[in-house]
Amino acid sequence: MTQTVKIGKLAMLLASLDESERELFIDAFEQVEYCQGKAGSMEVQKVIAAVETAAKRNGIISEHVYRETHALYHAILESLQGVTRGQIGVGNMMRTVGLRFAVVRGKPYDRSEEGEWIAVAFYGTIGAPVKGLEHETFGLGINHI
Amino acid sequence: MTQTVKIGKLAMLLASLDESERELFIDAFEQVEYCQGKAGSMEVQKVIAAVETAAKRNGIISEHVYRETHALYHAILESLQGVTRGQIGVGNMMRTVGLRFAVVRGKPYDRSEEGEWIAVAFYGTIGAPVKGLEHETFGLGINHI
Amino acid sequence: MTQTVKIGKLAMLLASLDESERELFIDAFEQVEYCQGKAGSMEVQKVIAAVETAAKRNGIISEHVYRETHALYHAILESLQGVTRGQIGVGNMMRTVGLRFAVVRGKPYDRSEEGEWIAVAFYGTIGAPVKGLEHETFGLGINHI
Amino acid sequence: MTQTVKIGKLAMLLASLDESERELFIDAFEQVEYCQGKAGSMEVQKVIAAVETAAKRNGIISEHVYRETHALYHAILESLQGVTRGQIGVGNMMRTVGLRFAVVRGKPYDRSEEGEWIAVAFYGTIGAPVKGLEHETFGLGINHI
Amino acid sequence: MTQTVKIGKLAMLLASLDESERELFIDAFEQVEYCQGKAGSMEVQKVIAAVETAAKRNGIISEHVYRETHALYHAILESLQGVTRGQIGVGNMMRTVGLRFAVVRGKPYDRSEEGEWIAVAFYGTIGAPVKGLEHETFGLGINHI
Amino acid sequence: MTQTVKIGKLAMLLASLDESERELFIDAFEQVEYCQGKAGSMEVQKVIAAVETAAKRNGIISEHVYRETHALYHAILESLQGVTRGQIGVGNMMRTVGLRFAVVRGKPYDRSEEGEWIAVAFYGTIGAPVKGLEHETFGLGINHI
Repeated sequence: MTQTVKIGKLAMLLASLDESERELFIDAFEQVEYCQGKAGSMEVQKVIAAVETAAKRNGIISEHVYRETHALYHAILESLQGVTRGQIGVGNMMRTVGLRFAVVRGKPYDRSEEGEWIAVAFYGTIGAPVKGLEHETFGLGINHI
Repeated sequence: MTQTVKIGKLAMLLASLDESERELFIDAFEQVEYCQGKAGSMEVQKVIAAVETAAKRNGIISEHVYRETHALYHAILESLQGVTRGQIGVGNMMRTVGLRFAVVRGKPYDRSEEGEWIAVAFYGTIGAPVKGLEHETFGLGINHI
Repeated sequence: MTQTVKIGKLAMLLASLDESERELFIDAFEQVEYCQGKAGSMEVQKVIAAVETAAKRNGIISEHVYRETHALYHAILESLQGVTRGQIGVGNMMRTVGLRFAVVRGKPYDRSEEGEWIAVAFYGTIGAPVKGLEHETFGLGINHI
Repeated sequence: MTQTVKIGKLAMLLASLDESERELFIDAFEQVEYCQGKAGSMEVQKVIAAVETAAKRNGIISEHVYRETHALYHAILESLQGVTRGQIGVGNMMRTVGLRFAVVRGKPYDRSEEGEWIAVAFYGTIGAPVKGLEHETFGLGINHI
Repeated sequence: MTQTVKIGKLAMLLASLDESERELFIDAFEQVEYCQGKAGSMEVQKVIAAVETAAKRNGIISEHVYRETHALYHAILESLQGVTRGQIGVGNMMRTVGLRFAVVRGKPYDRSEEGEWIAVAFYGTIGAPVKGLEHETFGLGINHI
Repeated sequence: MTQTVKIGKLAMLLASLDESERELFIDAFEQVEYCQGKAGSMEVQKVIAAVETAAKRNGIISEHVYRETHALYHAILESLQGVTRGQIGVGNMMRTVGLRFAVVRGKPYDRSEEGEWIAVAFYGTIGAPVKGLEHETFGLGINHI
């Protein structure tokens, strides 16, 4: 069963492309609901809260249904595994500089029973607590909603 | 110190865009050396070997210098942490379907002392051993070389 | 928001109690759908397959809807983290002796929007490859479905 | 070598059953020494300290022998792997609501040389820092003492 | 409470020094019981079995007491975490070349109640499945027995 | 390809031997550049900063070249995996007492193309937050520079 709408790829493009580049994919983005944002903090908890707040404020998930928050929460955690490359517990020592994120909600599969899924992508630079130590980092998490 | 050439983003685009989409970024790809390939196996060891073989055959890293293989190896491992979302040890139970990869080598920083770095990106679908259980997955690893 | 129906606790009781003990909780079990089984293998993949097969054969999840399998799969993985105590990747070296499992599907919350959730519990003995090295082990995973 | 006294199962029952349910197993609990308690904090360190304090105050382990504390400490850590499902490092971001624990000390094996073992079980609800995101969680750790 | 006999350091020296170097510490080694060996395999299970067999054959632990095997087993696992640098699950892809180990049993503390402890050290070279990719690696695990 | 100069073993000896013992290896230490230090804190971030500061102040790595800091940083992280035995995320709960470290830079291989590598070793005692719970711990990380 292949995905018709690639919500993960769309989330990655939304998180990493600059404005002029994003216009090249404008038709693809119309297939899904999405929001974007920045996570300026270096604490894992605050990064999670930033994504959840953005997703709720933009109506990507319902504020009042716990299972939607639960679905988003695990997609964020999976995405952060990519950002921290499997060392999410070390996350509190990282110094993020301009970590951008995108949350995409859509129907990746043709069969209607498969319903909606959610993708969370992060892109930015990550560093150790010592100034100057930073390079790009990426993460993608996907869940059913 | 920001990166002038975003080798990680370029690796992501090379791994996830289809041919017609890649042409939109053709100028950016000229800034770096890169190769692309597919990892058809479900064993972590074979995925690593496929990337190393492609990188050496295409002259991205030197076959005869161990430190270049060491740099690539750790970039692959970091990238696989994203693909498996922190559970690389569970890797041998995954059923990959069409995992594509890109290896990018370039000079991300203006200062010449920073030299060359390498980025490895994977994009594709990942599943459990039960047929049909698959969705997109992505990973990015970066190292100095 | 507290849970009215404790699907996790019910799964634990189903996996660990013997037949006469289970009868003490017979009323509680009527609140949910569930199935039980044994995982006789020492390979993580086969344990996962055994639970999925049992859950489908007993109608706990629909065989034809990928998102239900996806929900179950992640609940199994979380449960196995408890069984292997965070070392799921080391799983293939364990010698399981009589690992029993239970899958419970129900509505833990009063609000109908929260819908159905699934719980997977394992209980049994686990050992190293050397004969005689075994003691009890337990795991519980929960997901929205 | 099977266990005659199932200290792990007893610990799980002590941690998760309510008072009237526990009475159903009162004979089994007489085979072992145990204590129960609550861990009200969301910090891993404080949870560990709460269990250790309870175990010492109730005479389950000796306050003055380091090796008993060492045995208990590793049993707690293993149990927390189940609670956090392999992400103990993420533990400091969890919001626990009513995590109960039980520590059981006993002789699981018939042969007297096998001596005493200790089991630690946690049961309760676990959540992300965003209010309302919580569901049941369980953990069990066992060690020789 | 400081350790009078440093069983961990002694295990490290036994695993990594060559014969003439070991003679410099001959007095220190007399304080403990120990054995040495080589783990020629690249499979985690076989490495564990090699250490257990050596420890039993040399009388470092009793073959007939499960709790001694349990103590040794967890000390080996902790030591392998150092060898694989936290990625023990990836262990089955490593190509070990001349991994040597030492098992040390002794009384590190002055107080007699603290009894005996066991230390397991590995030292050697570790590599990826591609020939030539290898450098030194080391691990140490300690447990009460 | 075997290592002619064993920078990892030298780092371990520097981190764990006392002064009189170190004199026995004085010739071997002349083959490499190294520095030593103590990490008095219990926070992972401060331990990393202590090692980086020592390595820069003693000229083991260049303060002005990011790729050298990057190489050192990953060698420290790998070494800490050994210290925390794969649970680096739990690191912030450990109470270190006298953790000593050594950073060694040298040319382990005969072939000049392989260039310089760096090794980081930690040795000391590690404990839980409860006083008295401590035993030896070791870690070694190696990277190309």
